[in-house]
Amino acid sequence: MDIYLFAIFLLACGAAGATGALFPPGAWYKKLEKPWFTPPDWAFPVAWTSIYLLISFAGARVAVLEGNGFAMAFWAAQAGFATLWTPVFFGLRRLRGSLAVMAPLWLCVLGALVTHMQLDFWAGLAFVPYLLWVTVAAALNVQMWRLNPDVEPIKPDTL
Amino acid sequence: MDIYLFAIFLLACGAAGATGALFPPGAWYKKLEKPWFTPPDWAFPVAWTSIYLLISFAGARVAVLEGNGFAMAFWAAQAGFATLWTPVFFGLRRLRGSLAVMAPLWLCVLGALVTHMQLDFWAGLAFVPYLLWVTVAAALNVQMWRLNPDVEPIKPDTL
Repeated sequence: MDIYLFAIFLLACGAAGATGALFPPGAWYKKLEKPWFTPPDWAFPVAWTSIYLLISFAGARVAVLEGNGFAMAFWAAQAGFATLWTPVFFGLRRLRGSLAVMAPLWLCVLGALVTHMQLDFWAGLAFVPYLLWVTVAAALNVQMWRLNPDVEPIKPDTL
Repeated sequence: MDIYLFAIFLLACGAAGATGALFPPGAWYKKLEKPWFTPPDWAFPVAWTSIYLLISFAGARVAVLEGNGFAMAFWAAQAGFATLWTPVFFGLRRLRGSLAVMAPLWLCVLGALVTHMQLDFWAGLAFVPYLLWVTVAAALNVQMWRLNPDVEPIKPDTL
């Protein structure tokens, strides 16, 4: 694995990771009704850090292989939507709008898993925890939207 | 050019593009002191749409070439930081914090331009308007921070 490639993919994950610090779940999130399968707060940074390391490893392995076009395109697309979800959910409190981000994110992670797996078994395997996690996150997002119908989105323009 | 590859790269740009609609420049932005070289409002969506089409074309061309690892890694990294900038500037009103996003964005666009150019002249050329635009955007961001020292960042947690 090329360590410089790994570093650039990890940098890409840093954009998504920064959203967790910039739009932290605060008092508002604590008060939300949550489904029974909500993981404890500490699990989120642990899961995301592990996922970022794994998919940066996967990206670096597949980046040097011929025929990696679709794998690399899906890798890039998941980076965009992973960065978008947190500002929409925690920044704008759009519990339904964030589902419109979660859907393409989930599809891009599935696409990345399949296309990485076709080229390299370990790279494909490295995407499995990510797919499981966004599946849980999508279910959480749906349930939080359903359990909290009265949440008012933030309209930055009116502040 | 593979139209499906183009479509996935364009989807990745959609994450960044959505931030413009989700975090629109409203009354707050209108009241900011702006430097003399600030483009008119209509220029931003026009520029970004053109850039997204151009870099999706570039990504699709380079994705099928051997030795595209670094080009693809930089493409992914710019997607993350391009998606992050708007929520930090317009969502959080962090005029200085957004510079910490602009710096890696600028470097990733430069890296993408150089590595795409090494593989394909037209793909490299397609990144030139993007580099020029983020250079202008970075200068704008610096000047808006300097001209508006009293802007209070939004703390979503306190809302």
